[in-house]
Amino acid sequence: MAVSVNRHFGELGGSYLFSEVGRRVAEFQKENPDRSIIRMGIGDVTRPIPPVIVEAMKKAAGEMGTQEGFHGYGPEPGYGFLREAVAGYYSRRGVELSPEEIFISDGAKSDLGNLGDIFDAECSVLVTDPVYPAYVDSAVMSGRKVFYAAASAEQGFIPLPAQKGYLQEGDIIFLCSPNNPTGAVMTREMLEQWVEFARRHGRLIVFDAAYECFIQDDEIPHSIFEIEGAKECALEICSFSKKAGFTGLRCGYTVIPKELVVDGVSVRDLWFRRQSTRFNGASYITQRAAEAVFTPEGEAALEENLAYYRANAAILSEMLTECGVRHTGGKNAPYIWMECGVRNAFYTGKPGTGGILDSWTFFDRLLKEEGVVGTPGAGFGKAGEGFLRLTAFSTRENTLEAAERMKKFFRSL
Amino acid sequence: MAVSVNRHFGELGGSYLFSEVGRRVAEFQKENPDRSIIRMGIGDVTRPIPPVIVEAMKKAAGEMGTQEGFHGYGPEPGYGFLREAVAGYYSRRGVELSPEEIFISDGAKSDLGNLGDIFDAECSVLVTDPVYPAYVDSAVMSGRKVFYAAASAEQGFIPLPAQKGYLQEGDIIFLCSPNNPTGAVMTREMLEQWVEFARRHGRLIVFDAAYECFIQDDEIPHSIFEIEGAKECALEICSFSKKAGFTGLRCGYTVIPKELVVDGVSVRDLWFRRQSTRFNGASYITQRAAEAVFTPEGEAALEENLAYYRANAAILSEMLTECGVRHTGGKNAPYIWMECGVRNAFYTGKPGTGGILDSWTFFDRLLKEEGVVGTPGAGFGKAGEGFLRLTAFSTRENTLEAAERMKKFFRSL
Repeated sequence: MAVSVNRHFGELGGSYLFSEVGRRVAEFQKENPDRSIIRMGIGDVTRPIPPVIVEAMKKAAGEMGTQEGFHGYGPEPGYGFLREAVAGYYSRRGVELSPEEIFISDGAKSDLGNLGDIFDAECSVLVTDPVYPAYVDSAVMSGRKVFYAAASAEQGFIPLPAQKGYLQEGDIIFLCSPNNPTGAVMTREMLEQWVEFARRHGRLIVFDAAYECFIQDDEIPHSIFEIEGAKECALEICSFSKKAGFTGLRCGYTVIPKELVVDGVSVRDLWFRRQSTRFNGASYITQRAAEAVFTPEGEAALEENLAYYRANAAILSEMLTECGVRHTGGKNAPYIWMECGVRNAFYTGKPGTGGILDSWTFFDRLLKEEGVVGTPGAGFGKAGEGFLRLTAFSTRENTLEAAERMKKFFRSL
Repeated sequence: MAVSVNRHFGELGGSYLFSEVGRRVAEFQKENPDRSIIRMGIGDVTRPIPPVIVEAMKKAAGEMGTQEGFHGYGPEPGYGFLREAVAGYYSRRGVELSPEEIFISDGAKSDLGNLGDIFDAECSVLVTDPVYPAYVDSAVMSGRKVFYAAASAEQGFIPLPAQKGYLQEGDIIFLCSPNNPTGAVMTREMLEQWVEFARRHGRLIVFDAAYECFIQDDEIPHSIFEIEGAKECALEICSFSKKAGFTGLRCGYTVIPKELVVDGVSVRDLWFRRQSTRFNGASYITQRAAEAVFTPEGEAALEENLAYYRANAAILSEMLTECGVRHTGGKNAPYIWMECGVRNAFYTGKPGTGGILDSWTFFDRLLKEEGVVGTPGAGFGKAGEGFLRLTAFSTRENTLEAAERMKKFFRSL
């Protein structure tokens, strides 16, 4: 025999969505070097890191330069100080976790992709459609079958297990609330339905809580572990990227309760083994930064950043309302999910008719005519066709400018 | 169906070697809280990070706190400034690489484990024995068959493809030089044999160059790409951990030449896709620190650290010579690979006879009697039985103290 490649990579659709968006923008900029481009596409934050966190990083960097303060390999699942701080954060919402159930990593994206390693390659995956593409691409790369639970606009972009036609398969169920890309949030009742379904049918829920910090409505759960019984059927992945602007610092965490047992094996133990073999912990400096996130000073500063982004979301939402564009999200979420145009009398329910463009056409026109970049809904799945995702993470100045340009764009459509 | 676990985890041997060492040490310390323990086992460094690198980190941390200097998501394969610095480092040794062939990551251990994702699950793996256990455990977790090329003391711990009995299998060949755990180095001629073998039989070499910075002998290649034809059959993984003391900062890189094509597919493109889906780049602060490694000031400071560790290796080697203990390594490598005792007339060639203990017995006795921790050779593979790995990474003070204690231990054996 000779070495051969993983053939499942050939089954991946095109390039990774955000790489394709980046490629088109770079090409446009190259051809039009003088045009100003505003990126409202990728979910990357723009607010600087608050002083208390910067100081924590400088202090940690300084320690590394001294014999006494030097830190070498840390514990693979993260330092105790950070695991305890995360446990404390959950505890304030009534979710009791042991620090041993919390695994610090270099980010939610790594964990979301790597988690599949501990489950049988034959296990299929159920995702909602539209969907964050990394769930699907990771599953396809591992040769898993992927099933889609279509979330239409009519059902508020929230699929429920009671829906027919897709629940016969999907051993591992990815749920994301507040949702990327639609900004929809799942209520307690909806989550209860999923937990009950997973328990009854032996499914595992991977709950992506990356945007929980945007929830303002007291009734909406931040964690799936606020639902009774979830510890026996779910694990949860969260990130410091949006909460604290750590997209460039790389930190996330995964919660695997001791109660989560599959085939008589502790899922927590499997993940521990996977991580201690194929990972070596997150940067000490980043972990000290993450610790500072949970200080009163850190929380106050970050709350200001979140308020800033929420105001951006409101600007975009108001502009869309003014222009008559249907949209959701932006309330308990940093994403706004908008239709690609304004429906007219000839709208048949299908993108490409009655004032609604297909999403890549809309993307290209908005880029070329106004220099504004969104993320085409079709890149998030079939049910995303005819939609565009905008994010609230830009600067105020750019958000206002993008809103003005989009108003002009809609007038010209 | 219901969710089920990856059954290959059940095929892993015991716990990960270093976790087991850590467990035994912690247990001993708990029972003997007053005993002083010197850790010469794990390959973790102890010298602080040089000022020029600390300053680079503080500057980067400061930037993150400003609107203009804030860095969000970086390019998944790393920033251009660092990829260019690494290319420059290779260029000085006559290896020409494009920055696009260099992928920055959070560490060599992650890359070594994750690389398997891009190759067919049916591909088997060939490792040398003794071996760094993460190669084996990652392969076993993915359900790969693992073959061993035994490296005995008689052959200087260097297996060659001309050896019989193991070369019928092993589509992916892991080579590590300077070697972990034996400290052996491969000459140009040895590497040429492996490259020729891999090319002739369609195998892929994964070359682990994590310890290249310890090479002092001008004749020993630092990179497999110093060998003609290697770009068509090999990729190389390296780390800042040992070179620059980044074990707690997390940075490594993988070099995949454009010429490396398997089944008509560019391996570089596959890795790019894997990393942009299941990884999100290394910390900006860490990448700025790594950039400073290649400045003249950084290199001079790090050369001092390396000299410090080399002197530690010499202290251990001299002590072993004085005690009559056979050992290798420590010259172009930070590891010393020693027999577990002193051979006497009754030695039959098997550990447990003629003055040579088996390695876990030796480990336990050395820990209990003298409070010195090594890594038992048996943990690195069958051929490691009867050996112990010592590292040169401790402080001078601890190295001297450990040498004294070991002298005493050998007298009492």
